[in-house]
Amino acid sequence: MCWRAAPKYSRAARPALCVAPEHVTNGLCDVFSKLVGCLNLVGTESHMENVSAPHCRVAVNYVEDINQFGQKQLDSKQPREDYKELLELVQLFIANRNALLSPKLLILSNIKTCKTQAKSQSKSAKTAIVMLNMGGPQKVDQVGDYLHRIMTDRDMIQLPVQSRLGPWIAKRRTEEVQKKYMEIGGGSPIYKWTDLQGTLLCKALDEKLPKSAPHKHYIGFRYVHPFTEEALEEMERDGVERAVIFSQYPQYSCATSGSSFNTIADYYKNRSIPFNIQFSVIDRWPTHPLLAQVFAERIKEKLANFAEHIRNSVLIMFTAHSLPLKAVSRGDTYPHEVAATVAATMTALNVPNPHRLVWQSKVGPLPWLEPYTDDAIKAYPKKGVKNMILVPIAFVNEHIETLHELDIEYCQDVAKKAGVQQIERAAAPNDHPTFIAAMADVVAKHMEHGPRLGQQFLTRCPHCTSGRCYQSKEFFKKLCRAEHESVTHKVQDASSV
Amino acid sequence: MCWRAAPKYSRAARPALCVAPEHVTNGLCDVFSKLVGCLNLVGTESHMENVSAPHCRVAVNYVEDINQFGQKQLDSKQPREDYKELLELVQLFIANRNALLSPKLLILSNIKTCKTQAKSQSKSAKTAIVMLNMGGPQKVDQVGDYLHRIMTDRDMIQLPVQSRLGPWIAKRRTEEVQKKYMEIGGGSPIYKWTDLQGTLLCKALDEKLPKSAPHKHYIGFRYVHPFTEEALEEMERDGVERAVIFSQYPQYSCATSGSSFNTIADYYKNRSIPFNIQFSVIDRWPTHPLLAQVFAERIKEKLANFAEHIRNSVLIMFTAHSLPLKAVSRGDTYPHEVAATVAATMTALNVPNPHRLVWQSKVGPLPWLEPYTDDAIKAYPKKGVKNMILVPIAFVNEHIETLHELDIEYCQDVAKKAGVQQIERAAAPNDHPTFIAAMADVVAKHMEHGPRLGQQFLTRCPHCTSGRCYQSKEFFKKLCRAEHESVTHKVQDASSV
Repeated sequence: MCWRAAPKYSRAARPALCVAPEHVTNGLCDVFSKLVGCLNLVGTESHMENVSAPHCRVAVNYVEDINQFGQKQLDSKQPREDYKELLELVQLFIANRNALLSPKLLILSNIKTCKTQAKSQSKSAKTAIVMLNMGGPQKVDQVGDYLHRIMTDRDMIQLPVQSRLGPWIAKRRTEEVQKKYMEIGGGSPIYKWTDLQGTLLCKALDEKLPKSAPHKHYIGFRYVHPFTEEALEEMERDGVERAVIFSQYPQYSCATSGSSFNTIADYYKNRSIPFNIQFSVIDRWPTHPLLAQVFAERIKEKLANFAEHIRNSVLIMFTAHSLPLKAVSRGDTYPHEVAATVAATMTALNVPNPHRLVWQSKVGPLPWLEPYTDDAIKAYPKKGVKNMILVPIAFVNEHIETLHELDIEYCQDVAKKAGVQQIERAAAPNDHPTFIAAMADVVAKHMEHGPRLGQQFLTRCPHCTSGRCYQSKEFFKKLCRAEHESVTHKVQDASSV
Repeated sequence: MCWRAAPKYSRAARPALCVAPEHVTNGLCDVFSKLVGCLNLVGTESHMENVSAPHCRVAVNYVEDINQFGQKQLDSKQPREDYKELLELVQLFIANRNALLSPKLLILSNIKTCKTQAKSQSKSAKTAIVMLNMGGPQKVDQVGDYLHRIMTDRDMIQLPVQSRLGPWIAKRRTEEVQKKYMEIGGGSPIYKWTDLQGTLLCKALDEKLPKSAPHKHYIGFRYVHPFTEEALEEMERDGVERAVIFSQYPQYSCATSGSSFNTIADYYKNRSIPFNIQFSVIDRWPTHPLLAQVFAERIKEKLANFAEHIRNSVLIMFTAHSLPLKAVSRGDTYPHEVAATVAATMTALNVPNPHRLVWQSKVGPLPWLEPYTDDAIKAYPKKGVKNMILVPIAFVNEHIETLHELDIEYCQDVAKKAGVQQIERAAAPNDHPTFIAAMADVVAKHMEHGPRLGQQFLTRCPHCTSGRCYQSKEFFKKLCRAEHESVTHKVQDASSV
């Protein structure tokens, strides 16, 4: 048996491993996750693509990496120990899952590689899925600009003389933050995950909703390229008929989701709204059952790493970005929505373990929502709680605050010093098939049943004094032609807007 | 047609209106609720009792009131206008619900009254359901003692030189609080509701779980008679085999639920634990589907009062007792659990209306969790939100903070001044049949599947420094013989405790 390097595949033409849809299960995906772990390729796209009935193309992206791994083994003449395990896993997968081997299948065990001539991905988009998120610098030299944009965004952070103090703080922190990005591999993976999620989501939607197909995703980041404005430009250029603005923050906060929505309002301030596009908004989805399910599955993956006799007493510590108390008192719904996701996840998880919700990443001198994650990690061993799992519950991708703050600062440094026996960190939803199913269900239900714009979105915080917020809500009523929709349930004619 | 006063019925021998179980619906209960409203008997027990198959005895408590009402009509010689409506309602009920008229039925329309010789309620209890709550003064002259107990409870409130300052504050506030109790009819209805809930709960349990029957409820209040200590004494005297300590706060807070549990630990400090009783604990149940369902039904009752064209835009404002930020920062889980109940309720309600969670009843000068309920009522009309429903979400009975703070202070005074157009207040769960079903399901599942003591209960707040809390948790491990149960899943022998 020998390895042969696979040819370089374009995104549109990759080797495929095909299984009948009824065999596409989470267990199957677990096998692929283990493969990735075995290859030390953390961050590799471990996704499951639905291509066309009656077959599903699964986790095609691995093939290239697996072949590279095989080639390295040949080159080094010292096959790694886990080579055997890798092969066993692939064989297990093929044997147990009754994979229907297509003529285009690449089978590792007998080293046949082949290309799939997948359908070209270029398609005319009919429905745009605009995925809003903050984004992160993909390269270290983008960090300065990224921080500058955050520090001058008054929706995100309020500073005195912000136009001068913001850039000053951004500049002062750049080097330190660059160092952190270097430590997690040189950049943020948010783009990579969002793009993959978008691709998989649109494929799922093409199957679920053939009437509105083809669906195409557009990434709209707040602080790095591709910017929200660029997403809107591209979408208009593509001539879509419908646009679903889909916040990638499951829980709404004025500082995050709100800022992204305000950016869209800003963009159209000096432009005419393209009323040939039917716009609608998904502003929050904190308790979607499949979202809770994917968090539960991510936790289960880590619970399995604990010895059986302590597994049921491991503390499940949910952690989310904290919020200034000023925002909490103003009425920002974020803490409540995060707590709701936690409760839904614990219900889906259905284990006897204790859990807590704590808050991370506070910045500045003002009071924020507590208890803080690092303080809780420090405090619990003194109370006899020495085994825990950290679960990032308010962000759907790996990013600097999972890969650096949680994995390096807390799990390595803080936990070690505090006397924690074992600490694990649950992966973000990333490309877990249950998460793709969650996104697809959120969007499909929204497109089928509406509303185009939720009243929860339109209702401002009781103590909001932001004129910017007021104008933004008014803009979205116009954009979605929903001025009276939710109140009177009368459909407004476009000409009356 | 004439009225005759019904004889005074003892609790055990009341007139009954019987219907087949398949006709016992929420709609039927609504008819009774309307009857009560028609009679201006707010607070009358509007419950539905499951007595024995195949018939259900419904809302028996009304009969007495209805007869008194009829007698007054006769006495006054000026029959009230709503008399007609009352009769229509009863007739509607009988006609539409296919009531099976038992020989013991009291039919208002032809003025036959009779007694039912109900089974005697006295029964030997096998299983105790100990219902923990704070309680409220049933009579105005209990207010002083009630306040004294609250103000000297360090679990509930922390004051400097509390043993002197607490009683001083209690004394100073007594007259003002007495006045409030006078305004809601002279006392708190918490006892009345809890007792009724306990009766109905135990009847439901007797049917669901014949093996552990008879079940008997024991009310354990924290600040008024019947005290928690009295409940424990009575339960021991009755010689029960099993005791389920059932917190009546669906959401756990160290200040409320925690204080009640600590009282049990205190009680057994100088007594030997009765190990012939099998103890177990239900410490929280914030997202039970039927709890969410009853809140949703209570909201629907009030949504129906709004004109149809505005009904779907009414702001649903959930309100719960606030908590000092110090407790929030220590890690008290109450705010998260309240938020979880809110989310579950909105899911069950399934309406397009916007909602918010706000906090009421702050006391003292220190910072508490905001936004406050009254401030939100004042703020929203300025933002164009003029129709709202207040939903007390963290207390299962009417009490001073619903009947006075919400109904009188906020709905009448604050809302009027703020320019609110229409404000309604959702009833507490009280004796809604869905709520009784919720309680019964919580207890039955707990008794059948455990655990005897949850790990969430045993896990202290990350920043708890209370030795009292530590000792209390240790005591409950012993009481429930659960020292290692949840960790190793081994059953401990009683002799090893």
